[in-house]
Amino acid sequence: MTGALATDLYELNMAASYLRRGMTGVATFSLFVRRLPASRGFLVAAGLEPALAFLEAFRFETDELAHLRDELGFTQDDTDALGALRFTGDVWAVPEGRVVYAGEPLLEVTAPLPEGQLVETLLLNQLTFHTTVASKAARCVIAAAGRDVVDFSFRRTQGADAADAVARDSAVVGFTATSNVAAARRYGLRAAGTMAHSYIEAFPSEADAFRAFAEDFPHRTTFLVDTYDTVGGIRTAIDVIGELGLEPPLGIRLDSGDLGALSEQARAMLDDAGLPHVRVFVSGGLDEVDIDDLVRAGAPIDAFGVGTRMGVSADAPFLDTAYKLAEYDGRPVMKLSPDKISVPGAKQVYRTGEGDVVTIRDEAPPDGGEPLLVRVMKNGARTAPAPEARDAVVAARARFEADLAGMPEDARDVRAPRAPVARLSDRLQALAVEARTAVLSGDPSEA
Amino acid sequence: MTGALATDLYELNMAASYLRRGMTGVATFSLFVRRLPASRGFLVAAGLEPALAFLEAFRFETDELAHLRDELGFTQDDTDALGALRFTGDVWAVPEGRVVYAGEPLLEVTAPLPEGQLVETLLLNQLTFHTTVASKAARCVIAAAGRDVVDFSFRRTQGADAADAVARDSAVVGFTATSNVAAARRYGLRAAGTMAHSYIEAFPSEADAFRAFAEDFPHRTTFLVDTYDTVGGIRTAIDVIGELGLEPPLGIRLDSGDLGALSEQARAMLDDAGLPHVRVFVSGGLDEVDIDDLVRAGAPIDAFGVGTRMGVSADAPFLDTAYKLAEYDGRPVMKLSPDKISVPGAKQVYRTGEGDVVTIRDEAPPDGGEPLLVRVMKNGARTAPAPEARDAVVAARARFEADLAGMPEDARDVRAPRAPVARLSDRLQALAVEARTAVLSGDPSEA
Repeated sequence: MTGALATDLYELNMAASYLRRGMTGVATFSLFVRRLPASRGFLVAAGLEPALAFLEAFRFETDELAHLRDELGFTQDDTDALGALRFTGDVWAVPEGRVVYAGEPLLEVTAPLPEGQLVETLLLNQLTFHTTVASKAARCVIAAAGRDVVDFSFRRTQGADAADAVARDSAVVGFTATSNVAAARRYGLRAAGTMAHSYIEAFPSEADAFRAFAEDFPHRTTFLVDTYDTVGGIRTAIDVIGELGLEPPLGIRLDSGDLGALSEQARAMLDDAGLPHVRVFVSGGLDEVDIDDLVRAGAPIDAFGVGTRMGVSADAPFLDTAYKLAEYDGRPVMKLSPDKISVPGAKQVYRTGEGDVVTIRDEAPPDGGEPLLVRVMKNGARTAPAPEARDAVVAARARFEADLAGMPEDARDVRAPRAPVARLSDRLQALAVEARTAVLSGDPSEA
Repeated sequence: MTGALATDLYELNMAASYLRRGMTGVATFSLFVRRLPASRGFLVAAGLEPALAFLEAFRFETDELAHLRDELGFTQDDTDALGALRFTGDVWAVPEGRVVYAGEPLLEVTAPLPEGQLVETLLLNQLTFHTTVASKAARCVIAAAGRDVVDFSFRRTQGADAADAVARDSAVVGFTATSNVAAARRYGLRAAGTMAHSYIEAFPSEADAFRAFAEDFPHRTTFLVDTYDTVGGIRTAIDVIGELGLEPPLGIRLDSGDLGALSEQARAMLDDAGLPHVRVFVSGGLDEVDIDDLVRAGAPIDAFGVGTRMGVSADAPFLDTAYKLAEYDGRPVMKLSPDKISVPGAKQVYRTGEGDVVTIRDEAPPDGGEPLLVRVMKNGARTAPAPEARDAVVAARARFEADLAGMPEDARDVRAPRAPVARLSDRLQALAVEARTAVLSGDPSEA
């Protein structure tokens, strides 16, 4: 799926045209989010690892070249030239897990023009999706205010690969486990899950089902109590715990109804039965606003299972990302389409005490500014060996935790977030004015 | 990604528990959509082909079994039993491309209980996602009212595999092309695309870029005219067409601004220049409501490029699907959780002149009723050979076209759709009452 042919046709047209014309000068493309959805106060950069893996492996296979020639009208010269291409450029990027805002490059590619163009579609695809999910999941973690949050999204993500990504990205921002066994194995996460309603229904009675499960999995027993009648189910769980003398860890799960009221009732019943150690787990169509409601109401909930709404980022299932040519052959370039104006030149972003500043890549940093973009590829090779999948998650999680601690309160707000806006440095603003003037005067080559 | 370990942990717990206890009686699970999103008047069934491919290949690999034993606490007996499992059940399903409504099973699995349980997560994942996308894309096709609609979603779908699925599912409902080259090749679709803004910017002037592209791709020239100034861009396109004596097919593409007004202006300028054959193509954040606006306003648009909002089904990025145990060991079962009541027993859906009727699978069909569910797998083997990927798309498209022609007007409405509601047959209603009574009387085994 992620070979070189996994791209939009126009990328191939442009690359072939550039190759025919010897337009292989160095270009810089900048990948950024134009503006945040109203319900987001920040983004969490993610998707860099799969993007780099794609760039490292980038090449057209023989059968793909034959397809381009025989079915899509490219010439033998075109496909010879495409076949010889590898990604030989530099990549600067914000490491996964870091917090970013609108207008800040998440990634910049500096490469011969055809290469930079051909990789656009997949870079956008990966960074957009992973960043969308990590940012949504981070809001769930913030809303849970220290309680456990578990990824339950697999069954309704946008495909099986998406489920893998969601398990990973939600772990980066602090989810404590995932139901997805394959992803847990791949990324070194804790796998979580106990039983479904169908399990209860397959037994002659709820009590029989509870007994059977506790016997089979004494160390992972969380009783799903709402199959027939929730209060009755809690009572049955209490009875079975007593009857079998079960030891912690133990829990009950509420998956429907008024989770606030039911969790109060469950907690009271468990405490009255001398079972203060039995945890209350809730799930069922939750998002960060629901979690925030429950937490603010003081509902005695120990852990949240969060599924579909997080896994597809239901309220904002994409980001307004762009991948824009910023410089070609030593000349800054920009686009003036309404609402889509881009800023020219290779850039850097500095995090300072007064907020983020976007600068020309090589200008002097603002006082005390910490650069967000790191060179992760040079001449087509990673600047550091590819990390193990699980190590990449651990490192990204540490970055997110550090950035979360330093994030403005307004940006973290679950209900009415206010996103910080990065400032453009004086020199970058001047460059933009120059490039714009040159474009409008009809001679972009002078910019 | 789609091996047997691509599942929720609880499926493995339940399957292992069933296997230990010899609970391998035949179970029927029913996969359906509980209710439609407010903005949907119908659904288009999709995702069956990948689901069947998964079932055919279902098995645990040796390293996966070792992981379950060594890391997740399953016993050697558990993993021996899991390792011996293959999918040996029957599958009844609505063929891809058919129109369906809430409460109608999209798919039913009848298999030994552990098998039916283990495949839940991936079946739900695939049918939910593909049906979500096909249903959204169908609305775009309806809104376009006969004009071409092209899939431009790759860069912002939820992963690269999702892009592949979107190209396929949008073709099923009548999209005429996709920008996704790999998917077009795989599914036998037309690949479409010309140039991006970056191409224009890489040349000294817009006219130079237009000339270069037309020389290189005389048979696929659509000029992107909004990089600097749209009206100026249209004028430049007209000049270059005249200067180079270009022949059709030719087009211009508008990607920003007021697409209605600009398309009028473009059409007028092109007609005045004696170029009535140059097509007007529009794109830029469109969904079916935008398309409907433009079509109703009579905007002279020949084709729509539809991207992100279709590709992630932005207004309804998931469906409220469920996979419910309906029968076990000859006994109908049901769940009574608030708002999540299920209907017991193996079912069939008949399409009749008076709407759809959900019945017990084996009861006599209503007069003139056409059954929607077809047996696609028997004893773990497909009832017909797996179709070529491209043939499956062609067959599904034919089904959709036929069903679209017979769909109630209310259901097709883009702005305020009203979805038909399937009726339960008298016998199915009676069965539900019996099962419910048995559950509430505390003896589900009597149902």
